[in-house]
Amino acid sequence: MSQPTGACPHAWRHQQQHRGRMWATSRAFRRQLVLLRSLLPSPPTPPPYSFPSVAGRFFAPSCSSPSSTPSGSIRASHAMAGSAVYEADAEAVVRRITPPLDRSRHKGQAGKIAVIGGCREYTGAPYFAAISALKVGADLSHVFCTKDAATVIKSYSPELIVHPILEESYSDCVSNIMKHARQANIPTVVDGDGLFLITNNLGLVEGNPFAILTPNVYEYKRLVQKVLNCDVNEETAAEQLTLLCQKIGGVTIMRKGKADVISDGKTVTQVSTFGSPRRCGGQGDILSGSVAVFTSWARHFIMSNEEPKEKRVNPMTLGCIAGSLLLRKAASLAFEKSKRSTVTTDIIEFLGKSLEDICPAEH
Amino acid sequence: MSQPTGACPHAWRHQQQHRGRMWATSRAFRRQLVLLRSLLPSPPTPPPYSFPSVAGRFFAPSCSSPSSTPSGSIRASHAMAGSAVYEADAEAVVRRITPPLDRSRHKGQAGKIAVIGGCREYTGAPYFAAISALKVGADLSHVFCTKDAATVIKSYSPELIVHPILEESYSDCVSNIMKHARQANIPTVVDGDGLFLITNNLGLVEGNPFAILTPNVYEYKRLVQKVLNCDVNEETAAEQLTLLCQKIGGVTIMRKGKADVISDGKTVTQVSTFGSPRRCGGQGDILSGSVAVFTSWARHFIMSNEEPKEKRVNPMTLGCIAGSLLLRKAASLAFEKSKRSTVTTDIIEFLGKSLEDICPAEH
Repeated sequence: MSQPTGACPHAWRHQQQHRGRMWATSRAFRRQLVLLRSLLPSPPTPPPYSFPSVAGRFFAPSCSSPSSTPSGSIRASHAMAGSAVYEADAEAVVRRITPPLDRSRHKGQAGKIAVIGGCREYTGAPYFAAISALKVGADLSHVFCTKDAATVIKSYSPELIVHPILEESYSDCVSNIMKHARQANIPTVVDGDGLFLITNNLGLVEGNPFAILTPNVYEYKRLVQKVLNCDVNEETAAEQLTLLCQKIGGVTIMRKGKADVISDGKTVTQVSTFGSPRRCGGQGDILSGSVAVFTSWARHFIMSNEEPKEKRVNPMTLGCIAGSLLLRKAASLAFEKSKRSTVTTDIIEFLGKSLEDICPAEH
Repeated sequence: MSQPTGACPHAWRHQQQHRGRMWATSRAFRRQLVLLRSLLPSPPTPPPYSFPSVAGRFFAPSCSSPSSTPSGSIRASHAMAGSAVYEADAEAVVRRITPPLDRSRHKGQAGKIAVIGGCREYTGAPYFAAISALKVGADLSHVFCTKDAATVIKSYSPELIVHPILEESYSDCVSNIMKHARQANIPTVVDGDGLFLITNNLGLVEGNPFAILTPNVYEYKRLVQKVLNCDVNEETAAEQLTLLCQKIGGVTIMRKGKADVISDGKTVTQVSTFGSPRRCGGQGDILSGSVAVFTSWARHFIMSNEEPKEKRVNPMTLGCIAGSLLLRKAASLAFEKSKRSTVTTDIIEFLGKSLEDICPAEH
């Protein structure tokens, strides 16, 4: 991700004027339109659980219809910023937001996810995120990547729909996708290289209540230095995280670590259930894919809930809590089985059982 | 699928006159001939169970010799159009049409399937259909797809024979294959993009008693709007489905949904055995591959049956009933095991057990 390639909706009109019709009919442009169309709600009446979504090494779920800006306090397990960080009752969150399986539903209604990522070097990360989304319970999982990456990602699993539509350097394209997703109120989970991109272009997520950033220790450090112009201070960690969210403007941040600490600038919650001592690469990708699905479910739950108190809960926070817990449970079961040889694929295999243990599927 | 590529039998002679020998010896032409040859009955005496077949994302089985146009009432479990829709005794159908395993048979006699599908974006769908056909009991399963798709589909499984012979835009080629299959009385199951193609070119299946269309909710809606010039009416669903078959001219349609409703313009039957509440993408592809095999078996069963009453049963309908039931049974077993994390591959793994439960293989 180093040079712009364009071909996203907002860039498009501008480029049209400068490059003429050649661009509009170019192959790259037409391919990338496929991606953009998948972000739009399906006309005329999107099913309640359909979420055409933007994502990334960058990932994202979305709900079919925009809700009001999420805001507010998140039940007893959460605390206001500035005070202590409360442990989330994460199992209760998972049980509350996971939708019942309903015989009358059809394909897509339990979720559609789009992962934007995958290039010459990286193919595992987008695969892990996309397959995790399916294993958590989404119906359809798309990956948008470069041509080289596509062949490999497809070969990992026939379950994924892989679109080889990105150019090798696609940060400009991703920037436009993020802007487009924001306009359409589509939640976006930003991880990995996406965090590098937004750290240098904060405007991409500024004031976007549907953006979730999932930085690891290094990515968090860079973000704090860039936005708060200081170093990470563990003694005032909760306040610093809250301030970071506020400065960026209402985004939700999940700071990954021994405990995953989550804030939307108003509340600070953590999930510290022990997972596994194995730190194999790829676990963050499982998290991104799972958070994408859970955020969408949480959003639908909040929108369809009658209780005024729950109406004020931020579904982005709930999605982070649920995703964090599920990864930890699955990692624990995988480690119990495979010990030191545990790899990411082993953990993915336990996502289903972990969810079933917390929240049994109805018959 | 947007631009014609030609190189199918009917186009061929025409093209010969206009393009000269260059075309006849071109690489694309020679490759596509492989496909066309596989559609023709093997000389001199095709074995009773061999079914060189045309298919698709589009799929199809065929019998070795053409039978008379299928027609007529389908036993007690079916109802005439206009009256109530009867539930098929689907287990009895599976038991009746599944051929005994005979030690004297050789490769190909239990079925050969060709799947026409697979392009830059989609590789999972043709794989699911082709591998399902094998798991149901076919001996050989071919996939005809684009070069890019072939490498990936081959990597999913060494069981399939994958031919990288199609150009990226192959709707013209598929149109010709469908015409050719019809002339040779080779049954053709049309699903996915194939339905989009025929909705805009009804002539491809008009009056073809060996064509089976398997639309989902959206595809059915488009078909009704195009052919009947009205919207889907659930109150007169059976009559509407019957009328649709009649208007298109004797094709069999399986309208997929909570119950799969099947009509050939004369009878309306349904299969409503509960499968699974998971709606992961790919289940329709399992269905297409299974229906292809069962239709071929049903056709052979009808042709070799002495009973005049059973002679009048439409084997296309029987194949749909059997395929529908088998998918539902397998989906149920897979869901019992994998719950929310059930994906299409899990369901395919249970096709064998599901068939064995209904109709044990003899020793």
